[in-house]
Amino acid sequence: MRRTITGFSNPTVKFLRSLREKKHRKASGKFLAEGLRLLTDARTSGHLPELLVMATERDPHPLLDALEADVLATGGEVLEMGADLLAKVTGKDNPQAVAGVFAEFDTGLAQIERGTAKIWLVAQALRDPGNLGTMLRTGDAVGAGGLILLDDCADPFSVEAVRASMGAVFTQKIALARWDEFLPWLRGGQGQLVAASLRDAVDYRGAPYAAPCFLLVGNESRGLPEDYEAACDLRVTMPMKGRADSLNAAVAAAVLAYEALATLG
Amino acid sequence: MRRTITGFSNPTVKFLRSLREKKHRKASGKFLAEGLRLLTDARTSGHLPELLVMATERDPHPLLDALEADVLATGGEVLEMGADLLAKVTGKDNPQAVAGVFAEFDTGLAQIERGTAKIWLVAQALRDPGNLGTMLRTGDAVGAGGLILLDDCADPFSVEAVRASMGAVFTQKIALARWDEFLPWLRGGQGQLVAASLRDAVDYRGAPYAAPCFLLVGNESRGLPEDYEAACDLRVTMPMKGRADSLNAAVAAAVLAYEALATLG
Repeated sequence: MRRTITGFSNPTVKFLRSLREKKHRKASGKFLAEGLRLLTDARTSGHLPELLVMATERDPHPLLDALEADVLATGGEVLEMGADLLAKVTGKDNPQAVAGVFAEFDTGLAQIERGTAKIWLVAQALRDPGNLGTMLRTGDAVGAGGLILLDDCADPFSVEAVRASMGAVFTQKIALARWDEFLPWLRGGQGQLVAASLRDAVDYRGAPYAAPCFLLVGNESRGLPEDYEAACDLRVTMPMKGRADSLNAAVAAAVLAYEALATLG
Repeated sequence: MRRTITGFSNPTVKFLRSLREKKHRKASGKFLAEGLRLLTDARTSGHLPELLVMATERDPHPLLDALEADVLATGGEVLEMGADLLAKVTGKDNPQAVAGVFAEFDTGLAQIERGTAKIWLVAQALRDPGNLGTMLRTGDAVGAGGLILLDDCADPFSVEAVRASMGAVFTQKIALARWDEFLPWLRGGQGQLVAASLRDAVDYRGAPYAAPCFLLVGNESRGLPEDYEAACDLRVTMPMKGRADSLNAAVAAAVLAYEALATLG
């Protein structure tokens, strides 16, 4: 059974719109993902939305039919609304014809099983949700286990991060932790901590990466705190041939992750 | 001599605000760059703003004094305005205390001297200004000569692209061209065209890169047109270990560029 919503002041529309703000996501424990491709990736990864919202003016698609059937079969809800209303929900000028509300996942460190992957990405105080989502996407590409977010990072469940992740938010493990919690956890088992760094660093190319390898990049403006770098097992640096002394954080993580992948396979 | 501007309806403020839109940038041939670091990078690269705008509430800084002196010495104009007004100009919540208006550069293919660098980045129909700016930044880092933008790309002089470039917009050559213009130009001299591709591609790692090497990435959603790929000298692919079949365009360019750098030095 589909419900159709027409009014901008409808409480469900207000709830959906509220999920664009972190405080409302945290209060409800829900987040928003949009687009048929993303929702299909979620479905094939075993994640179904609790609430599926479709634009009335959408084009028919067998994958959308399958998604709708699965959502209804698992007790979820399906709504229709005008494309203009849906655009206001997702905050996107060119709205995609479908969006879903998902329950946020467990983001505790305890759910990270370090032995399940050779590479893990770690970011400290990463502020840009686009960079965060891009790191999730890169993690998926290199077969990483997930992304560990240290200290005050952007919210991985923001619409921007989910969008930039291209579905990897559903396939990569995500953990949030303070440094003071992460370091003892890491040292409580196997794991090499590698910093992208300019201080006391070796060339990233052919560096002695070892699995499980935790690749750590720092904040977009400030990089990593010096004591964080000092606590790492390995500090690696990329050649910088130009005027600048740093790369975009998501780019640095990717160049490093592909290099580690070449070693660790 | 500084002028101080207080009103939101001042014509100069209106002009500055208009530079956030592409049509006004094209009409005036000017663009906006913000932040002391970016403007200092511009200055050391030989680019001075025609108009320098400073927030009245700024902190004093010797680099800002030097910048102001150079702008005045070259016949440029210096303005002061409240931080609230400057924020409206740059469209940034947390405005930086200084912004500059620059004349757009020559973006013709003819100014690209291919022999001056071993690596050139090329993007086709790149839509995201953040990706574009990040590619400029990566180009600077790998010692590339510049970025060639094919077909309908985002505007390299948009505030977002300039910001993401972290100053590389002033150090990298930028050219805009249609494919039908680019390919004959490329074939009119030395140059290897390498596509990041999934079709008929070899592993990107250790591929036979040759200078001057033109690394081509495609549109964020559609990738490269098949006939563009077919016209390339080499098609390379990165391992994709996860569910997704592509990387973020700026990430793909960076992983490829660092690999080419390892070969070409």
